[in-house]
Amino acid sequence: MKRIASLCLAAAICAAPALADEGMWTFNSFPAAKVKAKYGFEPTKDWLDHLRLSSVRIAGGCSASVVSADGLVMTNHHCARECIENLSGNMKKDFNRDGWFAKTEKDEARCPGMELNQLTDISDVTKKVQDATKDVPTEKFSEVQKSVIAGIEKECATSDEFRCEVVTLFRGGRYDLYKYRRLQDIRLVFAPEDGIAFFGGDPDNFMFPRYDLDVSFVRIYGKDGKPMKMDHHLAWSDGSLKEGDVTFVSGNPGGTSRGLTVAQLDDDRDMRMPMVLMRMAELRGFITMYQSRGAEQKRHSNDLLFGVENGFKAYKGRHAALADKAFYGQLVKNEQDFRAKVKARPELEKQYGAVWDTIGGLVKKQQAYRKEYNALERGPVSDLFGIARGYVRFAEESGKPNGERLKEFTDARLPQFKQGMLANRPIYDEMEIATLTWSLTKMREDLGPDHPVIKRVFGVKSPLQIATAAVKGTRLKDIKVDKTGNATGGLRKDLLDGGKAKIDASKDPMIELARSFDADARAIRKKYETEVDGPVKKQQELLAKARFAVYGDAIYPDATFTLRLSYGAVKGYEENGAQVKPFTTIAGAFDRHTGADPFALPKTWLAAKAKLGMDVPFNLVTTNDIIGGNSGSPMVNQKGEVVGLVFDGNIQSLGGDYGFDESVNRTVAVHSAALMEAMEKVYGAKRLVDEIKGAAAGVKSGQP
Amino acid sequence: MKRIASLCLAAAICAAPALADEGMWTFNSFPAAKVKAKYGFEPTKDWLDHLRLSSVRIAGGCSASVVSADGLVMTNHHCARECIENLSGNMKKDFNRDGWFAKTEKDEARCPGMELNQLTDISDVTKKVQDATKDVPTEKFSEVQKSVIAGIEKECATSDEFRCEVVTLFRGGRYDLYKYRRLQDIRLVFAPEDGIAFFGGDPDNFMFPRYDLDVSFVRIYGKDGKPMKMDHHLAWSDGSLKEGDVTFVSGNPGGTSRGLTVAQLDDDRDMRMPMVLMRMAELRGFITMYQSRGAEQKRHSNDLLFGVENGFKAYKGRHAALADKAFYGQLVKNEQDFRAKVKARPELEKQYGAVWDTIGGLVKKQQAYRKEYNALERGPVSDLFGIARGYVRFAEESGKPNGERLKEFTDARLPQFKQGMLANRPIYDEMEIATLTWSLTKMREDLGPDHPVIKRVFGVKSPLQIATAAVKGTRLKDIKVDKTGNATGGLRKDLLDGGKAKIDASKDPMIELARSFDADARAIRKKYETEVDGPVKKQQELLAKARFAVYGDAIYPDATFTLRLSYGAVKGYEENGAQVKPFTTIAGAFDRHTGADPFALPKTWLAAKAKLGMDVPFNLVTTNDIIGGNSGSPMVNQKGEVVGLVFDGNIQSLGGDYGFDESVNRTVAVHSAALMEAMEKVYGAKRLVDEIKGAAAGVKSGQP
Repeated sequence: MKRIASLCLAAAICAAPALADEGMWTFNSFPAAKVKAKYGFEPTKDWLDHLRLSSVRIAGGCSASVVSADGLVMTNHHCARECIENLSGNMKKDFNRDGWFAKTEKDEARCPGMELNQLTDISDVTKKVQDATKDVPTEKFSEVQKSVIAGIEKECATSDEFRCEVVTLFRGGRYDLYKYRRLQDIRLVFAPEDGIAFFGGDPDNFMFPRYDLDVSFVRIYGKDGKPMKMDHHLAWSDGSLKEGDVTFVSGNPGGTSRGLTVAQLDDDRDMRMPMVLMRMAELRGFITMYQSRGAEQKRHSNDLLFGVENGFKAYKGRHAALADKAFYGQLVKNEQDFRAKVKARPELEKQYGAVWDTIGGLVKKQQAYRKEYNALERGPVSDLFGIARGYVRFAEESGKPNGERLKEFTDARLPQFKQGMLANRPIYDEMEIATLTWSLTKMREDLGPDHPVIKRVFGVKSPLQIATAAVKGTRLKDIKVDKTGNATGGLRKDLLDGGKAKIDASKDPMIELARSFDADARAIRKKYETEVDGPVKKQQELLAKARFAVYGDAIYPDATFTLRLSYGAVKGYEENGAQVKPFTTIAGAFDRHTGADPFALPKTWLAAKAKLGMDVPFNLVTTNDIIGGNSGSPMVNQKGEVVGLVFDGNIQSLGGDYGFDESVNRTVAVHSAALMEAMEKVYGAKRLVDEIKGAAAGVKSGQP
Repeated sequence: MKRIASLCLAAAICAAPALADEGMWTFNSFPAAKVKAKYGFEPTKDWLDHLRLSSVRIAGGCSASVVSADGLVMTNHHCARECIENLSGNMKKDFNRDGWFAKTEKDEARCPGMELNQLTDISDVTKKVQDATKDVPTEKFSEVQKSVIAGIEKECATSDEFRCEVVTLFRGGRYDLYKYRRLQDIRLVFAPEDGIAFFGGDPDNFMFPRYDLDVSFVRIYGKDGKPMKMDHHLAWSDGSLKEGDVTFVSGNPGGTSRGLTVAQLDDDRDMRMPMVLMRMAELRGFITMYQSRGAEQKRHSNDLLFGVENGFKAYKGRHAALADKAFYGQLVKNEQDFRAKVKARPELEKQYGAVWDTIGGLVKKQQAYRKEYNALERGPVSDLFGIARGYVRFAEESGKPNGERLKEFTDARLPQFKQGMLANRPIYDEMEIATLTWSLTKMREDLGPDHPVIKRVFGVKSPLQIATAAVKGTRLKDIKVDKTGNATGGLRKDLLDGGKAKIDASKDPMIELARSFDADARAIRKKYETEVDGPVKKQQELLAKARFAVYGDAIYPDATFTLRLSYGAVKGYEENGAQVKPFTTIAGAFDRHTGADPFALPKTWLAAKAKLGMDVPFNLVTTNDIIGGNSGSPMVNQKGEVVGLVFDGNIQSLGGDYGFDESVNRTVAVHSAALMEAMEKVYGAKRLVDEIKGAAAGVKSGQP
């Protein structure tokens, strides 16, 4: 991975005019004029509104778009993996391996717990949030801010139909209230076999050239049990996209670290990331070997392994960027320049000059609390434990005033919490015992066997003994659902309905396990929020103000898993001295086929080979600035038509967490033409092709 | 882990008088006067010679000592783990779990492939080595040096009885020829249960207070099949060691990095160590889950898991030291001071001023080659693959002139190579397939699926397919041995005897796998040796000379897995504000017993509880400066009597790789009194107690 040092525009702190395609822009501050200057096309407000309202976020961590008036939604295969696995488990099949196609509407099956959010309104609440904490002592900052935000969100979320979130932009420079429509009955329509969705597997993940059909379609249903009519959806392009064409990506980048100080970056490079990477690597080895237990174990652990491997490779790339002396040196230089500019203006120096050192001191505190925070508050890798802790905390929190609750239990967020608790996801005792044993072992490793919590929770038992007793003894899998997946009874519903009294009385061993160190977990969380998180936020507010004062406000904020728009163009790049072309073709997939996993094309593809257009473009790269969370984002042309489906970034893009390097940072997408070609000729999914192309012909509503 | 910044003596580059107990000193440059100044006792040449000749190195990576005139040798349990596991496999028992005690001499069983080395002579060959490379161009440095060293070693190793090694001290400042007597018939006499040898397991590893009986006894046999009479052995102390007493540790520290430049340290912190740690973590998870396949799989993978976990924790501690800003800052400052002193003297600046930057450039080259080097040359985790590669290379190398061979095939080293190839260690197909599959997957991950070697070696096969075919198809397990373990026939012996012709003709699938990328592996090794290793060595010679010029030559070299002597004293330390006492007692082990692994005392101990002296000291800490490889070292008092058996360092000592911090860096040892108490009262090993105590009474020969 070669990086250049021209990270001039990272965090927009360069003097040079911003001509690189950098930035994950909010829809309400999109630099339309900049786009016009570079690409000769200026998006209008209507254009932006239509794209925003055709975009949906998947609450679990992905992006998606509506592609028909009947609520058909396109996202990645890997964004629907959990749903695919859940349906497999409930129906005793392996739809991940074999694919899924609902031949008729009736065959579309509900994804347990899946929720989509459509961003309907954005409003600026900066003054309200900042005023509330203005004269508050540092140690109260976190608490007071949490309370004012809970109030704003509650006022906005007028019913269970809405989800409201105050989003912290510029790490505290601006607070916007995002109002979402919650779409909760989501059904699986189509998913190809994992073998082509993730062709090349982990070895090819984050690589290019690439040949993946990483797509799935789901459909939004209304409360009436019918496909929901959507006012906005994207039209389909004619597939004529060529090198140099402007492209837009609308999606939800999960998070970036471009606004961190060097003290925080040092911590990332030297402590936090190595720690996370070691833990992920160990879990990867553990699950890889678990898969050898048998076909069923392989199937039910596939989604976990995919998540771990994907995250591991992404983190590895990020760490590698920080380890690159030239790249890192530029980040250090950026901060030095920024500090020098602040220092040069006495009024700024007085207000903001101490921020960097103060954050440096807070980082040390964070390091001191980290192990205990992670061990106790993050909790084990176990669905059952997560559910159990949910009950324990729900019992505790639901009686408190809204503003004093843990964030995830405020009124505005309770509906999602309850939906999650009642989702009918299959749970596998064998895997639960394995991952809970592992997690408890790590907990003891991190805290040490002499830590009071470990002594109390473990007593004379081993992690395996504790995990086995809790998993075998718990009744938390007990849930009854109707045919669309709504909970109608069972212990999980009883406990939620019964509230505190019923939960407190429960002797369920998993609940008892969660309860056994919940006070400790809450204590370290409180300490962390009060002494680290709040004070850091306060400093970051100051830093953001300093940044606006020095660089103006025509800059974009770090990603926050909220809707952003990125512009760019179809463009190849140079790697190891060779030019990488921007498009691959279907022929390339057949060239790469070996027959052995993960380079084995599915039988459906081998059978359809003669029918397929070998020159049809398969995957492509563009200069759009994206990051994890953008998976499933639609890529559109200037007419707002779908030209691609974003599913990855190249390996060079991973450093994009810290800074954008236009020379090599690329978004990877499935080409719209390959999607139609495969749907039609490999899968015979004519009803979907017609629905999508019908939309493209403008027959249905919602064209701009 | 709290570190202080007073690493004044690291690499001995302080102006202050050297009064800390720092240093892993060679026996021929021991600072006896310094010891006298601090502890009032000055070791004589006889004292040193006796201790040296009573010390033995275990070729696999540990230290040990002779404790009776009949060749009884004491080392750690974990240093004999491989032997214990091999005997378990061959005899279908689990001696690791259950312990081993040979009631009579006849029951002592040979450890397959185990070899001890006794250091008989040290001579200075610096001039000869340095003269040979003086006017040689940089790219030839490695080759020419290898050749001159091979010649020196060959001349010294006059028969298979001897092992000769030119040791590079001060990273090139000095070259000494070490001549060892090879002791090859080593039989297992005693080992306690793993449950007490490694009481507390991984959670307590590198921790203190501690309660481990990490001991084993083996015996050296001669060619006549009888216990070997030894001219030197250590006497046993009376167990009266107290806080403040001076202690000496004679053993073989494996390696330290105190002489590295900051460019090399940066590489360690940011690239090399994270990479190694991630790989070890993954293997740890993989083997941890492998153990769940069943009791037999657990037994035969225990040694591998122990090694991985032990190494992982050690590396983690080292990385944490580098991530500590105060610690690292001191290392940077040390180099700045050194460079300033060189710069201040024009004649030094002219000769050595460019060294640091030159090494910095070479580090970048090293980084560029690292992945390919590791993937191809380090080779998979697989005994069978290792054997196969041994044959492939033996065929190639044995026909070349001595000076042109790969280092491990020079005449002086061939005897060890052959012994290793013919050792009758059990091999487990199931584990071989698992670890080879994993290793091949990592190889593909590191090089990428499009690397020419991967394309050629993998073809259309998956790692599992390749590994399964090679392990199931190979006949390399075929070996016949007589009752003391000497190879008498079988394919392995035939191939070695048949040499190149026979090996080249072999169609064994494991040999073919090794052969399939051997040329590639050799090519990257050659490139690495020529372009990185040789040039770095040349620069390090200059750096060593600069260091002698600036700081004088009363300094110690970085560890090199050769015999070193460290002095220190029994001393507690402060941790988290509390004082840690230097001794634990047998009572403490019973207090820590929970009954669940790894805190379960063996049944033998529970049964013997009433007989045991609860106040008998169990483990202790001293200020001796040691590192991995010192495991099994005898700890002696000023009379040269055994007072302890070194088996660990505390967690704070792990940063000792880079610098010694006397305030917290501690050696952890089993107390001599606990050893006798347990041998006598738990295990009824009276014949050994008598043998050892008889030695202590001076009845046998070899007292100083």
